Amino acid sequence: MTSQKQLLEDFKKGEMRALSRLISMAENRDPEVPAILSQLFSEIGKAKIIGVTGPPGAGKSTLINLFVKLIRAQKKRVAVIAVDPVSPFSGGALLGDRIRLQEHFNDSDVFIRSLSTRGKLGGLSIAAREVSELVDAFGFDYVIVETVGVGQSEVDIRKVVDVTVLVLVPEWGDGIQTLKSGILEIADIFIVNKSDREGADRIVLELKNMLHMAGKEAAVLATNQNDKSLVERSLTEVDHFFKKETELIRKRREHSRLEIVEEWLRMMITEEANRWASENTRTHKNPYEVIVEFQKKYPKGKLLPK
Amino acid sequence: MTSQKQLLEDFKKGEMRALSRLISMAENRDPEVPAILSQLFSEIGKAKIIGVTGPPGAGKSTLINLFVKLIRAQKKRVAVIAVDPVSPFSGGALLGDRIRLQEHFNDSDVFIRSLSTRGKLGGLSIAAREVSELVDAFGFDYVIVETVGVGQSEVDIRKVVDVTVLVLVPEWGDGIQTLKSGILEIADIFIVNKSDREGADRIVLELKNMLHMAGKEAAVLATNQNDKSLVERSLTEVDHFFKKETELIRKRREHSRLEIVEEWLRMMITEEANRWASENTRTHKNPYEVIVEFQKKYPKGKLLPK
Repeated sequence: MTSQKQLLEDFKKGEMRALSRLISMAENRDPEVPAILSQLFSEIGKAKIIGVTGPPGAGKSTLINLFVKLIRAQKKRVAVIAVDPVSPFSGGALLGDRIRLQEHFNDSDVFIRSLSTRGKLGGLSIAAREVSELVDAFGFDYVIVETVGVGQSEVDIRKVVDVTVLVLVPEWGDGIQTLKSGILEIADIFIVNKSDREGADRIVLELKNMLHMAGKEAAVLATNQNDKSLVERSLTEVDHFFKKETELIRKRREHSRLEIVEEWLRMMITEEANRWASENTRTHKNPYEVIVEFQKKYPKGKLLPK
Repeated sequence: MTSQKQLLEDFKKGEMRALSRLISMAENRDPEVPAILSQLFSEIGKAKIIGVTGPPGAGKSTLINLFVKLIRAQKKRVAVIAVDPVSPFSGGALLGDRIRLQEHFNDSDVFIRSLSTRGKLGGLSIAAREVSELVDAFGFDYVIVETVGVGQSEVDIRKVVDVTVLVLVPEWGDGIQTLKSGILEIADIFIVNKSDREGADRIVLELKNMLHMAGKEAAVLATNQNDKSLVERSLTEVDHFFKKETELIRKRREHSRLEIVEEWLRMMITEEANRWASENTRTHKNPYEVIVEFQKKYPKGKLLPK
């Protein structure tokens, strides 16, 4: 086992193995991670952290692959973090898509990694933020966090990225009608992918109308993998967001770090609470009594000293 | 506002409004709920709590509607609790399906209710268990808890029901191939619905083979809404499970109540932790330092007294 000090030294020297090791620790919610990130904190804050989300089959991985190529053409370093919910119904699909990124496997300036919960306690989105911070501290310029299924708290990365790009497809047009309310809040930039298919113009227009009606300013772009200029335009829009929204991004980063602190505290306290629950549930005549007793013993505001 | 005492009295008299009110309180994680359930505890434990889950479009609601009819033909009382994850991609579908159950709206021995998170902290599956206990105490014989998307922790009801029925369709056959590992653990009873469609026999056979290979004993049944005897057979299998697996069900109930205690403690403690986090994050030079300080101040096992 490498010591924490050695690991940090190797990391600062730019050794990929140290980065990988630290990412695994974050993924596994290792209690040493906060101390390590605290020591790396001065190195963090240079990368652009971009969330790319949308329903399965929207072409997120292909689009990300094209973004990676464009970013590499600018001689910038890019990391792709795929957040994989473990689900027997959707699981696996995301990992399979990693194949599309394989052409970059020999490029040390492209870093690709999947994260999954593996049944561990604690939020996967929080781990995604910590991993992004590690990759940021390591010197990558872009971090693209890919996830399916916005709206599930487990994989909801909106709170932990600087900008959220929602990728939709023309076929999904009917979905919009029924889901108006939720969809607008999700993204900063809307991309209608596979725009060479029927219905693309209509969905772009509908999204624009909906945003207008809701008083929200957000770019809506059509893209498809066969049109390089459209893909470039999408990436330019993302870069533009970082230039334009510096204050918003500063606030989001602050907020996401508060979420990280909350999540760690929650995790540590939960272990304690579970111990208390299982010890006391055994000795009481019914489990609801245990909760009532806890409510009396630790009333709101009395558990942790100020 | 009705007092807790009045509410309990009305509930015990069998007033539906009191039941509805208590369910809303459980849904909203009202801190009075544990005390109420504690007082009702002697009335709880008679109902059969059945989880019905499966991918969208598997015909769960139609099948549940047929079960409701069969249960009513036996003069038993039945409640259907639909657990709705709030998701901009899948949301709404489940609620729409409630229409199929509308024919029972005038039957006071059929109780239908949807639960959703509404952005509140705390597990929806835990609320589903509490609601099931309330409905049980009220005197219903069957509680059917319906949910989509097994595998998402938010709506994972496996841990809080007595028996889990997984509903699949022939079209989903290809899905099984890739998802072998997860699917077997999910259910106690497998139902291949819409069995009049092509591929039904094959998926039944595949499931049986998979279960055999995994050394798991579980019924695999073909059903479709046009064949009453097949639907009856499915419900009989569920009833049979309750007769056969009394010890397993006892353990599951015990375990689900421990989960309820843990969830309540977690919720109460989380509020405290969030306050601590936000107060301390402001005064430290970096957020990771706050976590390290908490780790030092409240080492494992020292937070809550034994």
